[in-house]
Amino acid sequence: MNTDDIKQLLEQVRTRKVSVEDALGTLRDLPFEELDFARVDNHRDLRCGFPEVIFCEGKRPGDITAISRVILDRSSRLLATRADPEAFDAVRQASADARYHERARCVTVAKQEPPRVDGRILILTAGTADIPVAEEARVTADIMGHEVETIYDVGVAGIHRVLAQTDRIHDADCLVVVAGMEGALASVVGGLSANPVIAVPTSVGYGASFGGIAPLLTMLNSCAAGVAVVNIDNGFGAGHMAALVARTRTRD
Amino acid sequence: MNTDDIKQLLEQVRTRKVSVEDALGTLRDLPFEELDFARVDNHRDLRCGFPEVIFCEGKRPGDITAISRVILDRSSRLLATRADPEAFDAVRQASADARYHERARCVTVAKQEPPRVDGRILILTAGTADIPVAEEARVTADIMGHEVETIYDVGVAGIHRVLAQTDRIHDADCLVVVAGMEGALASVVGGLSANPVIAVPTSVGYGASFGGIAPLLTMLNSCAAGVAVVNIDNGFGAGHMAALVARTRTRD
Amino acid sequence: MNTDDIKQLLEQVRTRKVSVEDALGTLRDLPFEELDFARVDNHRDLRCGFPEVIFCEGKRPGDITAISRVILDRSSRLLATRADPEAFDAVRQASADARYHERARCVTVAKQEPPRVDGRILILTAGTADIPVAEEARVTADIMGHEVETIYDVGVAGIHRVLAQTDRIHDADCLVVVAGMEGALASVVGGLSANPVIAVPTSVGYGASFGGIAPLLTMLNSCAAGVAVVNIDNGFGAGHMAALVARTRTRD
Amino acid sequence: MNTDDIKQLLEQVRTRKVSVEDALGTLRDLPFEELDFARVDNHRDLRCGFPEVIFCEGKRPGDITAISRVILDRSSRLLATRADPEAFDAVRQASADARYHERARCVTVAKQEPPRVDGRILILTAGTADIPVAEEARVTADIMGHEVETIYDVGVAGIHRVLAQTDRIHDADCLVVVAGMEGALASVVGGLSANPVIAVPTSVGYGASFGGIAPLLTMLNSCAAGVAVVNIDNGFGAGHMAALVARTRTRD
Amino acid sequence: MNTDDIKQLLEQVRTRKVSVEDALGTLRDLPFEELDFARVDNHRDLRCGFPEVIFCEGKRPGDITAISRVILDRSSRLLATRADPEAFDAVRQASADARYHERARCVTVAKQEPPRVDGRILILTAGTADIPVAEEARVTADIMGHEVETIYDVGVAGIHRVLAQTDRIHDADCLVVVAGMEGALASVVGGLSANPVIAVPTSVGYGASFGGIAPLLTMLNSCAAGVAVVNIDNGFGAGHMAALVARTRTRD
Amino acid sequence: MNTDDIKQLLEQVRTRKVSVEDALGTLRDLPFEELDFARVDNHRDLRCGFPEVIFCEGKRPGDITAISRVILDRSSRLLATRADPEAFDAVRQASADARYHERARCVTVAKQEPPRVDGRILILTAGTADIPVAEEARVTADIMGHEVETIYDVGVAGIHRVLAQTDRIHDADCLVVVAGMEGALASVVGGLSANPVIAVPTSVGYGASFGGIAPLLTMLNSCAAGVAVVNIDNGFGAGHMAALVARTRTRD
Amino acid sequence: MNTDDIKQLLEQVRTRKVSVEDALGTLRDLPFEELDFARVDNHRDLRCGFPEVIFCEGKRPGDITAISRVILDRSSRLLATRADPEAFDAVRQASADARYHERARCVTVAKQEPPRVDGRILILTAGTADIPVAEEARVTADIMGHEVETIYDVGVAGIHRVLAQTDRIHDADCLVVVAGMEGALASVVGGLSANPVIAVPTSVGYGASFGGIAPLLTMLNSCAAGVAVVNIDNGFGAGHMAALVARTRTRD
Amino acid sequence: MNTDDIKQLLEQVRTRKVSVEDALGTLRDLPFEELDFARVDNHRDLRCGFPEVIFCEGKRPGDITAISRVILDRSSRLLATRADPEAFDAVRQASADARYHERARCVTVAKQEPPRVDGRILILTAGTADIPVAEEARVTADIMGHEVETIYDVGVAGIHRVLAQTDRIHDADCLVVVAGMEGALASVVGGLSANPVIAVPTSVGYGASFGGIAPLLTMLNSCAAGVAVVNIDNGFGAGHMAALVARTRTRD
Repeated sequence: MNTDDIKQLLEQVRTRKVSVEDALGTLRDLPFEELDFARVDNHRDLRCGFPEVIFCEGKRPGDITAISRVILDRSSRLLATRADPEAFDAVRQASADARYHERARCVTVAKQEPPRVDGRILILTAGTADIPVAEEARVTADIMGHEVETIYDVGVAGIHRVLAQTDRIHDADCLVVVAGMEGALASVVGGLSANPVIAVPTSVGYGASFGGIAPLLTMLNSCAAGVAVVNIDNGFGAGHMAALVARTRTRD
Repeated sequence: MNTDDIKQLLEQVRTRKVSVEDALGTLRDLPFEELDFARVDNHRDLRCGFPEVIFCEGKRPGDITAISRVILDRSSRLLATRADPEAFDAVRQASADARYHERARCVTVAKQEPPRVDGRILILTAGTADIPVAEEARVTADIMGHEVETIYDVGVAGIHRVLAQTDRIHDADCLVVVAGMEGALASVVGGLSANPVIAVPTSVGYGASFGGIAPLLTMLNSCAAGVAVVNIDNGFGAGHMAALVARTRTRD
Repeated sequence: MNTDDIKQLLEQVRTRKVSVEDALGTLRDLPFEELDFARVDNHRDLRCGFPEVIFCEGKRPGDITAISRVILDRSSRLLATRADPEAFDAVRQASADARYHERARCVTVAKQEPPRVDGRILILTAGTADIPVAEEARVTADIMGHEVETIYDVGVAGIHRVLAQTDRIHDADCLVVVAGMEGALASVVGGLSANPVIAVPTSVGYGASFGGIAPLLTMLNSCAAGVAVVNIDNGFGAGHMAALVARTRTRD
Repeated sequence: MNTDDIKQLLEQVRTRKVSVEDALGTLRDLPFEELDFARVDNHRDLRCGFPEVIFCEGKRPGDITAISRVILDRSSRLLATRADPEAFDAVRQASADARYHERARCVTVAKQEPPRVDGRILILTAGTADIPVAEEARVTADIMGHEVETIYDVGVAGIHRVLAQTDRIHDADCLVVVAGMEGALASVVGGLSANPVIAVPTSVGYGASFGGIAPLLTMLNSCAAGVAVVNIDNGFGAGHMAALVARTRTRD
Repeated sequence: MNTDDIKQLLEQVRTRKVSVEDALGTLRDLPFEELDFARVDNHRDLRCGFPEVIFCEGKRPGDITAISRVILDRSSRLLATRADPEAFDAVRQASADARYHERARCVTVAKQEPPRVDGRILILTAGTADIPVAEEARVTADIMGHEVETIYDVGVAGIHRVLAQTDRIHDADCLVVVAGMEGALASVVGGLSANPVIAVPTSVGYGASFGGIAPLLTMLNSCAAGVAVVNIDNGFGAGHMAALVARTRTRD
Repeated sequence: MNTDDIKQLLEQVRTRKVSVEDALGTLRDLPFEELDFARVDNHRDLRCGFPEVIFCEGKRPGDITAISRVILDRSSRLLATRADPEAFDAVRQASADARYHERARCVTVAKQEPPRVDGRILILTAGTADIPVAEEARVTADIMGHEVETIYDVGVAGIHRVLAQTDRIHDADCLVVVAGMEGALASVVGGLSANPVIAVPTSVGYGASFGGIAPLLTMLNSCAAGVAVVNIDNGFGAGHMAALVARTRTRD
Repeated sequence: MNTDDIKQLLEQVRTRKVSVEDALGTLRDLPFEELDFARVDNHRDLRCGFPEVIFCEGKRPGDITAISRVILDRSSRLLATRADPEAFDAVRQASADARYHERARCVTVAKQEPPRVDGRILILTAGTADIPVAEEARVTADIMGHEVETIYDVGVAGIHRVLAQTDRIHDADCLVVVAGMEGALASVVGGLSANPVIAVPTSVGYGASFGGIAPLLTMLNSCAAGVAVVNIDNGFGAGHMAALVARTRTRD
Repeated sequence: MNTDDIKQLLEQVRTRKVSVEDALGTLRDLPFEELDFARVDNHRDLRCGFPEVIFCEGKRPGDITAISRVILDRSSRLLATRADPEAFDAVRQASADARYHERARCVTVAKQEPPRVDGRILILTAGTADIPVAEEARVTADIMGHEVETIYDVGVAGIHRVLAQTDRIHDADCLVVVAGMEGALASVVGGLSANPVIAVPTSVGYGASFGGIAPLLTMLNSCAAGVAVVNIDNGFGAGHMAALVARTRTRD
C-alpha cells in the first residue's frame, strides 16, 4: 500500500464513501493469505516482480500442494526449488501444467508463456559437477522471462577454454559463474566482462573445500571488481538476481 | 583484442600493409604497461568500463604517484581507495585536480566532469558507524557517473525508520545496503524492493560479530531473493557493482 | 537444604530429638535417587520449578521407562524431548497418560491438568521449516502451565507479515522467536516489543548457514536490546526460559 | 501508532476536524528525528521502555553531544556505553548532570531519580577480570530503575564460594552471570535457581578462549535449563534484558 | 636399545664374540615386525608399558586378526578399541580368550590376570550419554592393571550430585572426567581434588556443541589448575593416561 | 599455440597459402573438444605432460564412458580417480584394457606400457588407514611412468620405525608423506631428507582431527623446510606432483 | 569440611560444648576471605595442594598487593603469573622476599625453602621461542617443590637432537613438552616415554599456526598414548599438572 | 651417520684402533652444538643441502649473533629471515660480509659466491603487495645457488597479463606463485605449466581473506594438478622447496 492508496482511501473516508470501520479494516488487511501452517506472501509478485517461490526441502507434500494452489490462484507462474519427484507430484496436484526439471531439481508452472524480458544472461560453470546448481539458476531466470545461454565445464586450469568464449562473455548483460573447488573462474570472468557477475560457490569438492567455504571465500575476495556472491549452492538466488539485473535494461 | 581486430590485422598482413614481424609484435604487445614494480592494466578502461583502481594500503607513496601518472596518461578519471592523507599527497604529485574524500578514505581525479550515466543508486546503512564504508561506495559510483542517494542509520531495531523510506527504496535502480552487527537490514530492504540489492557486511560490532563474519553470514543466508554480497568493508566493490548494474539501463 | 532447615536440625540434635548419626545421615542424604545408570534429580522440581526433563536422544528405551517411573513417583508432570515413537512407547510403559506431540517430538504426562500460571507467551517463526522447534517450545511452556500463542511463517523478507502482528507482539509477556537462515526476525521483533525476547536459531537453511551458525551469530549480535539466545534448535530451552520469565509476574 | 490512534485519526478525517493532507502527514510522520548523520529513535522510550542508548565506540565527540541533546529533549534519562573520558566530556556538553562510571565505562544522566521498579537483580562474576562487564550490566539495570546486588569472583574452581551464596541466588528475580575462560558458572547458577539466568561470556582469558568463544559455547550448551545468552562482553545487553525480565513482576 | 646395550655390543665386537656384520645387523634390526600392511611395534610394551593398541575403525577383519596374533605372540595382554561385533570376531580368531565390552566397544585379551598395579582411578561422567566413552576409559585402565571406580550422571546443573561424592573424589590418585554439552564438570572436580584430572570432551550434545568443540574449549580453558585434556571421545587415551599417572605411585 | 606457430601461420597468410578466414578459424579453434556436458581438454597432454584425469565422484556412468572415449582417442593412457566398481564398468565400456585398483579406487588404461621416466618416488604412511590415499598416489605416479616404492605404517609414536628407513629416504628423488591424526610424520621425514617432500593430510582420525584439518595445519606449519602440502585425501594430487618433481631429472 | 568435621561439630552441639548459633556460624563460615573486589580461596592450599595463584594480567597493582597479603598471611608460598615488572613491584609491596623470573614472567615468594617433593620433571621445547612458556612451567613446578630439568630447542626437524636425550626422557617421572608451529615434538616424546606427557601448545609461529591452534590440534590428535594437553601458552597449568603427577610417587 | 660410518667405526673397534668408550662417545656424540639457549643443527647442511636457517622473529640480538657464529664456523653460507635492521646488525657482528635485503627482510652471508646450481626458478605474484613474500623466496633460492626470474603483478583479473608470459612459464623448471586475496593465480599458472608449482598464500587482503585463509584454501583446492602449498607468507619455505625441486635436474 503506497502513499497514493492511502490518500485515496482517506478521501473516500472524508467523502463518506468508505466507513471508518472499513477503512480501518483495509489498513489492517495486509496482502498475504494465512494458511494453517504458512502465510503466503501474495503481495510479493507486485512488490518484487515474481510470486513467492516454494523451497520444497522440509515441507510436507500436502503443504506444497496447498501453497501451490494459493500461489496459482493469483499468479500465472510458479517456481518450486529443491524439489524431488514427490514434491513434483505435490505441485502437479495443484496444476496439470507442472513441469519437472530433473537436473535442476525444480518444478515450474507457466499457465501461459511468460512474457519475454529483454536482457541476456550467460551462465558458466567451472566443472561438470557444478551443472545442477547452474541449471537451477537457468530454470529460475527462464521462468522469469529471460533468454539464458550456458557454457559449462570451462575451469581455469585450462584457461584457453574460457578465453575461447570471450565474445559471448562480452555480449551478456549479466553473468552467473558457478564453481566449486577453488572457485577461481569468477575472478577470470569478472576480469573479462564489463557487466555484473553473480558468483555462486558450490559444495563440489572434497577435503579443504569444506562444503563450499573455499570457493565462497575465493569469490568474496575476488580481485576483479564487479563480482557479487550468493549463498553456497544457491542457484535459485543467482538466477533471480541475474534476472533482476538484466531487466534493468527495460525499466522505465 | 577482439575477433574484428584480429581479422583486420590479418587482412593487413595479407595485403602486405603490415609485415609479419609487426603483426607478431602487435599480437604479443598486450595492452598493459610495465613499471618496475607493477603492471598497470590500461586495457581495463575499455574492457571493464573504468580504469584500474589504486588500492593504496601497503603501497609506497612513490609507487602511488607513478601508477597515478600512468593511469592519468590514458584516462581522464582516477580512483584511489584506502587512502590516508599521505596517499592523497602522492596522488596530488601526479595531478593537481586530486580531491580527498576524508570519511570515504578515497582520492578521486576527474580531469573533466564524468559523463552522467542513467541509473539511480540508493545506499543505506544500518548504523552511523557503517557510514565510512557507505561513503566509499558513494564516491565510487559517483566517479563512475551515477546519481547516488543515501539514507544512513536505519537499522531494523527501529523498523519504522526503514519503512518511512519505502518510496525511495522503490525508486532506485540498484540498492547498496551497508550493515555490521547482525546485518539484517539487507533482508528487510531486499523484501521491499524489486531491484537488485548489493549487501556489504562491515566489521562494525564486537564480540561474536567476529570482525564482520556475523553480518556476512546473515547476508549470504538472506531469505530475500535479489541480494548478493561483496567482501567485508568492501565499499568500493559495492559501489562499482551497483554502477555496473545501474548502467545496464543504458546499454544498447 | 536452607539455613532454617539446618538450624532446626541442629536444635533437634541439641534437644536430642535427633541422634548425631541421623543428623549426619540427613545432612549427607542428598535429594537424588540413584538408578543403575542415572541419578534422577528429584530435588529439581522444588529447586527449579519443574521436574527433570528427559532428553531421549541416545537413551535406551528401558532407561527411559525407568527414569519416567522415578519422576512420576514424585511429580505429577513429565516432559520428554527429542522423542521418537519408540521413546513414546517407553514413556507409555511408565504411564498410560502419556501423550505424543508428533511435530514437537515431545512426550508429556500430566496426571492432572497443570495449574495455569499467569503470563502470556507468544512464539513466532520465520519460516514453516522452523515450526518443529517452535512446537517443542510451545509444548514445554504449556506443560509448565502457560498460555501460549503462535504466529508462524512471518519472515522479514515480507516485513508486512510481521507488522500485521504488532498488537499481539505488544501484548505478550515474553516472546520466543524461532528462525533459521539469516535469523533476522529476532531483531525486528526485539525492536517492536518492550518485553523479553528469547531467540532460538535453527539449523534450517543450507550452504553458509552452517547448521545454524549464521542465525546464531545474527541473534547474538542483534542491534535490538532485550534479546537473549539459546542453543541451536533448542526449542525446549526457549520454552522453559520463556515460562520462567512469564511467571515472574506472579512471583511474590 | 496503534489501532486506536489510527481509528481516532480516521474519525477526525471523517468529521473533517483533520484534513486529508494533515492526516497523510501524520501517518507518514514517523516518530524519529533526523540529524545530519543519525536518526534518533525517539519512539523507543514508549515502544521498548527506555530511550535509545548511545554506543560511543566509533562515534565522534560532536556527534555524541548532538545525539545526547536530542535524547534529553524528550527523555529524563540517558545511558551511554563504551564511553572513554572524552565521550564523557561530550555528554557533559549536553547535560551537567552526566555522571561517569569508570569501571563500567558508562555515562548516565538522570534528570530526576529514576522511578524504582520492583524486581531484584543479582549479578555474579566468575573472576575479578569480569567485573567491568558486570558493572556495565549493573549501571544499565540501575538507570532503568532496578535494585541490583552483586557477588564478584565466585568461579567454579572453588565451588564453595558459589554455594555460600545460595540464599541470595534464590531470592533474585533475575540473575546475570558474567564469566570468561570456561564460563561454567552459568550452568552451576542455573542449576541452583528457579528464575531466569542471563549469561554473558567475556573475552577474559587467553589461548583457546579465542576472545570469548569458549565461554560463549559453554553457556549456549548449558545443561541447566533457564539460561539464555547475550553477546560476548555485552554487559549492557544483559543488564537491559535482566531489567525487562525483572519488571515483568509489575506488568499489568 | 639403550646405552648399556650398545656398550655391551661394542665389547662383544671388540672381543670378537660378535662379528662386525652381526653387530651391524643388530644395530639396524629394530624391534618391530613387518606384516604386509602394518608394522607392529613390539618394542612398545617395554618402552611405554603396554603393547600397541589396535584401533579397529577402518581396519579389515583379516588385518585385525593378523595384528592380534603378532601382539599375542609377544605379550599376554591385548586391547582393541572402536570394535564392533565383527572386529570382536576377528580378535577371537586370534585368541579364544577374547572378551567383548559392548558399551565400551572394546575387546580385551588377558592370557593371565593382569598384575594389579597400585593407584586408584575414579571416572566421572556428566550425563548418561557420556557413559560409552567412560567405559572405554575404564576398560583400558582395568586391562592395564588398575582399580577403577565410576560415578556416572553427576552433571553440574545439579551440583549437589557432585558434592555428595567429595570423599571419593579426594581418595582417587587420578580422576577422569567425561563430559559433553558444556563440559563444566571438569572444572568443578578439578577444584575439589588435589590430584590430576584427565578431562575427556565428548561429542554428546547438539547445535552449538559442534561435535564436542564446546566441551573441548571449556576443558582447555578450565579455571581449575590440575586439569589436562585428551581428544574428543578419546576414552582410551584418558584411561591410558590415568593409568600412567596412577602407576607413578609404584615407580622406583 | 606458441609464438612459432603463430609466426608460421602468419607467413602462410602472407604467402596466401592460408586464407584469412582459415587463419582466423585456426586462431579461434582452440584445442578442446565439446561434449554435450563437458569440454575435454585434449591439449592438456602436451601442455602439462599427462591427459586430463577423470574425477568420477558425481559423474554419471554414461558421462564417464563418453569422456573416456574422447581421451583415449587422442592419448594412450587414462586415469580415473574416486572410482567405484560402477565407474570401473563405465570406463571398461570405452576400453577393454581398463584395470581396477581397488584399494586406490582408481581405474587405469595403458594401451601400451607407459615409457619409464627416470626419478624414484617413495611414499610413506603414518598408519594403515592412510593406505588408500597412498595407493591413489602410487597408481598415479606409476601410470605417469615412475618407479614408486612404499613404506607403510611408520608413525612417529614409534620413531625407530621411521629411522630404520633412513637409507631409503635418502635415496628417493621425491617423497610423498601421507598421514592423518596429527600428521607429524611429514616434519620428521622432511628433516631426514635433502629432497622435496609432498605432504598429504588425510581425514583419518576422529574428534579434534576435524576431517583432516589437524594434519593439514601440522603439515603447513612444518618446522622442516622442503615440505609442501596438497589437499586433504588428495592422493592423486600428491602422486602427480611427485611425478612432476621426479621427472625434473630428465628435463633438457 | 569433611564428614568427620561435621560429626565432631554435631557431637559438640549435642554435648552443648558449642551453641546452635555458633555451629550454624561455623557451617556457614566458609573458608574464603572477601576482599572488596575478590574472594581469596584460602581453602585451596589444603584442598588442592597449593595456595591460589595470582594471574596478574588485567589486575590493578593495588589489587595484586592486597591479594598477595591475604595469601601470604596463611601460606608460606606465593606464585604470580603473567607478571610484568609493575606487577612484581606490587607483590614486593606485600613481601620483600618476592623474586622476579623475567623470562617466565613470574613472581615467586617462598618464606622458607619449599619442602622438596620426590618426583623428577623434565621440560622440553621444540624451539627457542617456546622457552618463556617452558620457563613458566619450570618456575611453577619448582615453587611446588619439584626437581626440574630442561632440554630446550630439540624440534623434530632434526630428530637426532631429541634422540640424543632418550636416557633423560626415560628417567623423568613426568614430562612437559612445549611446542609451537606444528607441535609434533609431543608425539615423538610420547612415543619414547613410558610416563605421562603434558603437552603445551604455544602461539609461536605464523600464518596457518593461527595463534597456536595448529599445535593444539596436533597434540590433541597425538598418535602416542599418554599425552594430555593444556591451554595454548599455559606454562603454569603444565607445570602445576606435572607437579601433581610427579608427587603421586609420594602419596600414601 | 649412515650405515657405512657405523660399519667403519665397528671395524675400528674390532681392530682396536678405537676404544669402546670412544666409539660409544662417537655414537652418542650427535652432530649438533649446544649453546646455552639453542642447539644448532650443524648436521643439516649435509643432511638437507643447506645449513640451518635463522628465523629472527622473537630471537634476541645477542642470540642471533651467537647462532650466526656457530653456523659460519662450519658453513660458508648463512640465511636469516624475518630480519629487521636490528637483526641485520646482529648478524653483522658475526660477519662483515652480511648483506641486508630490505624488501625481503632477509640477511645473507656468502663467504664465497655460492656455486651455481642448474635449474631455473620463476616467481610470479598476483599483486604488488605480495612482492615482499616473493622477494623472500627469491633471496632464499638465490643463496642456494639458483637462477631466479620474477614476474610481478600479474593477477587473474587481467588474465592477458599472465598469458603474455606463457613462454617464460613454459621454460621454468619450477614455479613459485605468490598471491593473496583470492589466490587464483596458482590455478591458472598450474594449468599453463607442465612443471611443479609451489603456491604461497599471503595475508594480503582484508575482510573475508581472514589473514590468508582465503588464498590458502583456494590453492589447496586448486583444480590444476601439479600445485603444492606452503604456509601463509612463507616465502622462505617456497624458495627452499623450489630450489630442492629445481636441483633434482643435477642429481646423480
